[in-house]
Amino acid sequence: MEFPTLSKINSPADLKGMTPDELRTLCAEIRAALLSKLSAHGGHIGPNLGMVEAIVALHYVFDAPEDKIVFDVSHQSYTHKMLTGRARAFTDPAHYDDVTGYTQPRESEYDLFSVGHTSTSVSLASGLAKARDIMGGHENVVAVIGDGSLSGGQAFEGLNIGSTLGSNFIVVVNDNDMSIAENHGGLYADLRLLRNTNGEGEPNYFRSLGYSYRYVRYGNDLRSLIEAFRAVKDIDHPVVVHINTMKGLGLPAAEANKEAFHYGGPFDLKTGAPLHASAHQEDYTDVFADHMLAVMERNPRVAVLTAGTPGAIGFTPERRRAAGRRFVDTGIAEQDAVSMGGGMAKGGLRPVFGVVSSFLQRAYDQVAQDVALNRLPAVFTVFYGSVYGMNDETHLGFFDEALTANIPNVVYLAPTCREEYLAMLDWAVAQTSVPVVVRTPGGAVRSDRSIELLEDYSTARYQIVEQGENVAILAAGTFFETGRRAAELLKQEGVQATLINPRCLSTLDTETLDSLRDYKAIVTLEDAIADGGFGQKVAAYLGDAPVKVHVLGLPKQFVNNYKASELLAKQGITAEGIAELLK
Amino acid sequence: MEFPTLSKINSPADLKGMTPDELRTLCAEIRAALLSKLSAHGGHIGPNLGMVEAIVALHYVFDAPEDKIVFDVSHQSYTHKMLTGRARAFTDPAHYDDVTGYTQPRESEYDLFSVGHTSTSVSLASGLAKARDIMGGHENVVAVIGDGSLSGGQAFEGLNIGSTLGSNFIVVVNDNDMSIAENHGGLYADLRLLRNTNGEGEPNYFRSLGYSYRYVRYGNDLRSLIEAFRAVKDIDHPVVVHINTMKGLGLPAAEANKEAFHYGGPFDLKTGAPLHASAHQEDYTDVFADHMLAVMERNPRVAVLTAGTPGAIGFTPERRRAAGRRFVDTGIAEQDAVSMGGGMAKGGLRPVFGVVSSFLQRAYDQVAQDVALNRLPAVFTVFYGSVYGMNDETHLGFFDEALTANIPNVVYLAPTCREEYLAMLDWAVAQTSVPVVVRTPGGAVRSDRSIELLEDYSTARYQIVEQGENVAILAAGTFFETGRRAAELLKQEGVQATLINPRCLSTLDTETLDSLRDYKAIVTLEDAIADGGFGQKVAAYLGDAPVKVHVLGLPKQFVNNYKASELLAKQGITAEGIAELLK
Repeated sequence: MEFPTLSKINSPADLKGMTPDELRTLCAEIRAALLSKLSAHGGHIGPNLGMVEAIVALHYVFDAPEDKIVFDVSHQSYTHKMLTGRARAFTDPAHYDDVTGYTQPRESEYDLFSVGHTSTSVSLASGLAKARDIMGGHENVVAVIGDGSLSGGQAFEGLNIGSTLGSNFIVVVNDNDMSIAENHGGLYADLRLLRNTNGEGEPNYFRSLGYSYRYVRYGNDLRSLIEAFRAVKDIDHPVVVHINTMKGLGLPAAEANKEAFHYGGPFDLKTGAPLHASAHQEDYTDVFADHMLAVMERNPRVAVLTAGTPGAIGFTPERRRAAGRRFVDTGIAEQDAVSMGGGMAKGGLRPVFGVVSSFLQRAYDQVAQDVALNRLPAVFTVFYGSVYGMNDETHLGFFDEALTANIPNVVYLAPTCREEYLAMLDWAVAQTSVPVVVRTPGGAVRSDRSIELLEDYSTARYQIVEQGENVAILAAGTFFETGRRAAELLKQEGVQATLINPRCLSTLDTETLDSLRDYKAIVTLEDAIADGGFGQKVAAYLGDAPVKVHVLGLPKQFVNNYKASELLAKQGITAEGIAELLK
Repeated sequence: MEFPTLSKINSPADLKGMTPDELRTLCAEIRAALLSKLSAHGGHIGPNLGMVEAIVALHYVFDAPEDKIVFDVSHQSYTHKMLTGRARAFTDPAHYDDVTGYTQPRESEYDLFSVGHTSTSVSLASGLAKARDIMGGHENVVAVIGDGSLSGGQAFEGLNIGSTLGSNFIVVVNDNDMSIAENHGGLYADLRLLRNTNGEGEPNYFRSLGYSYRYVRYGNDLRSLIEAFRAVKDIDHPVVVHINTMKGLGLPAAEANKEAFHYGGPFDLKTGAPLHASAHQEDYTDVFADHMLAVMERNPRVAVLTAGTPGAIGFTPERRRAAGRRFVDTGIAEQDAVSMGGGMAKGGLRPVFGVVSSFLQRAYDQVAQDVALNRLPAVFTVFYGSVYGMNDETHLGFFDEALTANIPNVVYLAPTCREEYLAMLDWAVAQTSVPVVVRTPGGAVRSDRSIELLEDYSTARYQIVEQGENVAILAAGTFFETGRRAAELLKQEGVQATLINPRCLSTLDTETLDSLRDYKAIVTLEDAIADGGFGQKVAAYLGDAPVKVHVLGLPKQFVNNYKASELLAKQGITAEGIAELLK
C-alpha cells in the first residue's frame, strides 16, 4: 500500500502548508493505514477511526510541541503518532511494534504523558496551564477527552478547577455517544440534548461548570474542525469544544457494532470477522459471567456491577440482557461502583463488582471506608490481576493484592483453578459478614483435582496439598501450578517438599506456619509484587524462627509490554529456579 | 440548662405531632445544646449549627429508620443524633463522649454508615435505592450533601448514576457557600447563580445531570423546609432539593469566620475565643507552611497544593495570601490535586501537595499512574500519618505508608524530627527525577542533634546512629525516639544495641542490612500498619539469614477513638517492650 501524502509528514509543521484537498487525502491515507494495521495487528479500532480528522485538524491549527495536547486514555492517539514522526509504525508491518498503544514520552516529545486510565487529561492539562501561567508562557493547552471518560469523577474535578484558571485552557470533548460499551448516567441525556440542538440547548453541563462552549456538529468534517479550533486558538479563558464524531468511521462493521470494535485483535477488513476465531476458547470472563447468571437465577438478591467494562468481565450484551436490572453498569466510575455496591449490601443485596485489577486502584478509599470499615458483605472479583493479565505499563495487574489485602476486614482470596474460583465466589456471595476480594486466576482456564474446596473461607486455612519434610513451597493463586512443578522436580532429586495452597492472602494461617518453623527452608510464590504482599507477611511472622524464607513475586516496577515467561525467569519464578533454591 | 422539648424526643416519631411553635422551640433548644456542648467540648461547629432546622424538618417529614437518610461526611449529624435517642450526649456533660462525631451504625439503627470522608453519600444512597427497587420496597432514600462535598469527583459520579435510577431518590444539597475553607471551582459560580435567581437560572448543574430540581431560599426556615420535603416525599423519580443555609448560625463568631469555626476545640461562647489558647504551640503545620513560604521566596518554581484542607497543612488565610497564585487549592478533589501536580511538574514547576494521610487514599491511582509511572518530580507531604494523628476510625493515619511506599518509583521518606523533615523536603523539592512522599512526623515538634542530615535522599541509606553489636533497632520516623529509649534501657542492662534511623521506607539499604545478617536479633519499628510495610520488607530480605527479625507496627484494624499510649502498649511498641524482646 502506498501513502504518498502521509509519508511526507515528519512533524506537524509539514501539515501547515497543505491545501484542504491535500488534508483530505492525508486523512484518507491515515484511515487506510489504520485499517490496514488494525486488521492485521489489532488494537483500539473505533476510537482511532473516529478521531482521524479531529487530530489532523488539531495539529494543523495548533503548534505542538510548543502547544500542549493531552490525550485522555490516549488510546485514540494513533493519528497523532502518525503525524509526529512515527508514521512508519502504521504503514510498514515490519515496524508495527515500534510504538505502543498509548502516548509515551519515551517515544516522542509530542507525547506528554504515559496514560492509559481514563478521565485524567483535564487535570493533567490544568497543571500544564498553571505552570505556563506561573512561568510566563503563552502556549495553548488542550485536553482531548471522550464522552465515555466524562463519567469518571476525576474528569469532573478537573473540569471544575480548570474553569477557574482564568487563562487559555481548551477542552475538546470527543462525543461519539459511546464509552467502551454504552454510556451510563444523566450527563449523557444532556450531551444528547446538546447534539440535538446543535449545542444551543439548556441545561449545558459545561457551561454550568464555567466554560464558554462551542459545538461542532460534524466532528469528522475537517473544515468545521479547523474553523472551530482556529476560533479558540490563543483564547484567553477556558473553553469546551464539543465535537460530534463517529466511532469506527470507515469500517462498516465497527460503525455498526461499536462495543465489539472498541478494541480487538486482527480481523477481516471486508466482514469485520475476527481472523483467529477458530473454536472460541472459554476464558475466565465466561466462567465468571455464566456462573453468576446461574447464581442470580437461584438467588434474587445477587447483583453484578461493572464500572464501564462489562465485556472485560464476560457480560456480553446477551448476558446483560439475561441479568436484567440486577446487572448494574455505573459507566467508568469505579468509586461510585464500589460505594453503590456498599449501599446495595447495606440494603440487603449481595453485590459482586467485577473489576479489572488496574482499575480497582481508582477506588481504594471507597473499598476501605465505605465497604471495609462498615464490614459490608460486598464482593469484588478482580480480573487480569496476574502476570498473565494486560502487559501495558498502564494496565499492570501486579498491584491489587498489596492494595486491598492490607485493608482491615478484607478477606483476599487467590484461587488456583476454576473450581476453587467458583467455590470462593459462592462462599463470598453466601456470607454476610465481611467484604471479600476473589482474584480471578490468570492464564487459561484449568481444573485441578488436588485442590480441596471449602464451604467457608472466612478464616485463613492453608491446604497442605502434599506433606513433605524440611522444605515447603507456599504457592498462591495462578502460581500454584509452578509450585507443584517445582515440587515434582525436587521429588526427582529425592527431596519431598511440602506443597501448600494458601488460599487466603490477607491473613496468615499461623497454625500451619508454626508447623514449618523448624523446616530448613520455605519459598513463597505470589502472582503480584512481592512488596506489601503475602510472602513478606510470612517472612515477618517466621522472622524469629530458624526456617529460611524466600519470598518470590513480581517486581515493584512499571514494566512495559513484557513477556511473562521472561519476567518470571528474571524473578526466579520457574519450577527449576524454585527447586534449585530449595535443594 | 433545661431542654424541656428536646428531652421529650426519644425518636423521630415524637416529632410528628408537634405544632410549628413546638418545632421552633425544639430547634432553639437543639441549637442551645449544640452551643453548650461545642463550646465546652469542641467538635464540628459550623456544619452542625447550620443544619438544625433542615434535620428537624427531614425527621419531621420522613419516616426514619424506614426511610433512609444518608449524611455526607456525617460531621453535620449532631442534630440527627439528638432526635434519634441520643440527646443526652449533647445535653449532659457526663455523657458527651457517649457518641462519636460521625454517624455510627454501632450507636443507632438510624445511622446507616460509618462515614467521615466526603462526597460518598450519593453513591451509598443510590445503592440503598437500587436494593429497595430490586427487593420491592417503597421507602424514601435521601442523601444529604454539602456544597463543599460536591467538588469531590465521587459526588459527581453518584449524581450522574443516581439520576438514572428511575425511582424515588432525593438529594438534599446543603449550600452554605463554604467548604471547610472557601469553595473552589466553576460549579460554585453556578450555585451562586442559582441562589441569586431563586433557583430559576440556567445553566443548572443538577438539571444537566438529569434531576428535577427545587430550591429553598431560606434553608434555616422550618416552614420552607417542611414544605419542600413534603413536596418531594414519595416522589417517583430523582430530585435535588437545594437549600441555602447559614453555616454557624446562632454563634456570631462562627457566622463571621466560617473557616475558623468549621471544627475546633472548646471556646468562649460570648467571644468565640479558644479556651485553651495560652501560648500557641508550634506544630508541624506551622513548620511546614513557614518553611515552604521561605522556599517559595527563593525558588519561583515552587508551588504548594491542597485539596480543600489548607488549614490542615498550616496555610492559614494570611499564609495563603503570602503564597499568592503559587498556592493552589483544588477544593475537596484529591485526584485532581495529584494529577494537576503531575502536570505542573511536567510543565517545569516543583509542586508540593500537602495532604492528610487518610485523604491521600482517594488518589492512589493518580499517584501511581499520572505521577509515579511518569517519574514526575512531584512532592507529597503527608500530615497526620501517625498514631498521633486523628483517632477517628474514618481518619486513621496508619495506611499511607503501605499504600504509597509500594508504588514503583516512589521514594517514601520518614523523618524523625523537625530538621530531618525540612532537609528531606528541601531535597525533594530540589531534585527533578522522582516523586517523593515525605511523611510529617507525628506528635510534638522536636529536634534531634543525633540525626545526620543529607543533601541527597534518592537512595536508601540508613543512618547508624549508634553502633552496637548482636542486636539492632531499626526505628523509623516518629518511633525513632522510642527506639532510642529502648537502646538506652538495653545499655543499662549491659547490652549495646545498634540504633538505626532508616530514613527511607520504600526501598532497602541492603548494604546496612547485610551487616546485620549475623546479629542475634533485630527489631523494626514503624508508625504505620506492619502489614505491607518496611519491617516486613526487612524480614523478607533477611529471611535467609540467621538473624531473628521482629516486626513491630500498628495493627491492621479500624480502631476508633483510641488512646495512642494504650494502642502502642498493646502492640509492644514501648521502650520497655522492645528492650525485653532484645535482651
